[in-house]
Amino acid sequence: MIPFDDRGLLLGDGLFETLLAVDGAPIDLVAHLDRMAAGCAAVGLPDLDRAKAAGAIARAVQELGAERAAVRLTLTAGSGGRGLDRPQPPVIRLFATAAPAPAPTAPARLATAAARRNEGSPASRWKTLAYLDNVLARREALAAGADEALMLNNRGEVACAGAANLFWTTGGRLLTPALDCGVLAGVMRGRVLSAARAMGVETIEVAAPRAVLDEAEALFLTNSLIGVRPVGELDGRAFGPSPLVEALARAA
Amino acid sequence: MIPFDDRGLLLGDGLFETLLAVDGAPIDLVAHLDRMAAGCAAVGLPDLDRAKAAGAIARAVQELGAERAAVRLTLTAGSGGRGLDRPQPPVIRLFATAAPAPAPTAPARLATAAARRNEGSPASRWKTLAYLDNVLARREALAAGADEALMLNNRGEVACAGAANLFWTTGGRLLTPALDCGVLAGVMRGRVLSAARAMGVETIEVAAPRAVLDEAEALFLTNSLIGVRPVGELDGRAFGPSPLVEALARAA
Repeated sequence: MIPFDDRGLLLGDGLFETLLAVDGAPIDLVAHLDRMAAGCAAVGLPDLDRAKAAGAIARAVQELGAERAAVRLTLTAGSGGRGLDRPQPPVIRLFATAAPAPAPTAPARLATAAARRNEGSPASRWKTLAYLDNVLARREALAAGADEALMLNNRGEVACAGAANLFWTTGGRLLTPALDCGVLAGVMRGRVLSAARAMGVETIEVAAPRAVLDEAEALFLTNSLIGVRPVGELDGRAFGPSPLVEALARAA
Repeated sequence: MIPFDDRGLLLGDGLFETLLAVDGAPIDLVAHLDRMAAGCAAVGLPDLDRAKAAGAIARAVQELGAERAAVRLTLTAGSGGRGLDRPQPPVIRLFATAAPAPAPTAPARLATAAARRNEGSPASRWKTLAYLDNVLARREALAAGADEALMLNNRGEVACAGAANLFWTTGGRLLTPALDCGVLAGVMRGRVLSAARAMGVETIEVAAPRAVLDEAEALFLTNSLIGVRPVGELDGRAFGPSPLVEALARAA
């Protein structure tokens, strides 16, 4: 339980990580702790206690006992301070929960949402507790009969999905929005970029208007729970299977 | 205490109100409940239970027993759902806390922050739990030796302060950013606009670049706790007292 004066609850002042654990072992644990630690530095919170974070994750996974677990590690700026101003120093609150991981799903059906990513906030590059814009984008997508949102930023550039990074292929090249488009530096995003380069595929991080996706050959989503998930439809346009996407899914 | 699976805590999925209570009586209670109810509709949450909200506020004020109390009413989307998707229907969690109201302060010293308001999200017009951008903007202002942030939106237009609306005067007219600049529809903002019109002052809600403030005669901030607070300094430029601002402060 969390007290009423927790800044994560009151202001979204904190960070989280979502990761997969298979047979009790968290996947890419170091990369997730690295990102949370970098997020702490970016938003001015004290250094992450990695041992405590890893211990909380291990306990949550063990208690659940599932073969495939979705783990959420949550860090808040703790209690108190007056209004927006944190106490000095903040006393971090850290906890982890686990649930059975969602089953692999069919290709995603995307709809472009009106709610935008905030490329002008440093928080848009990190996995913060202030995630309401993405909740609203997902709501729009569900209302449109899709199951995930395509989010643009305020410049109209392609950013990401509600809970995933976005990639597309054109002419054998692999493209994804640059981080300064208001994009989370996803752990699986990084793995896919590395895997593509190792396969000799040209990769481009780009600021691209929405119209660029009309020329794309294939689209896919990535996050640590779903890995690589093909997009079967975007705003009513259908996409078929792609050998390149399938090869990346195996390699990442 | 709040459970670990609360969506306000995990995702910033909720709303809040901050209001003043004097001698046990909440000021502008109906306007604050109206705004929270409108916010619920805007972000797709169930209708606000006004009686429950008013009761929580009354209990918090009574328990504190202060002559002037700062009351915070917090509403979350409740527990559960999977990832971004809310349970259907969400079961709202609602609570209020009270603290002695901050004493009236000296004129504000503002510094323009790099962190931007997200004019492209419907959430930017409401008082949501996803308030981290404003926390970060305030941090920047404090680091710059100021005590409050001036926030622009991604188009570079003037939006608001970290925890207040912003007004300025030019040639006897009163200006404030339009709501679609990514601005909270503040209760005190509305009172000041009404008071100005009643005094025969021309009011303009405007999309204005930062440079417009270099031509301003006086600046001030508003929120329900501070009322009208003059700005004494913006990015090192000093502002003296303004008879128009003082008149508005008395009238609002």
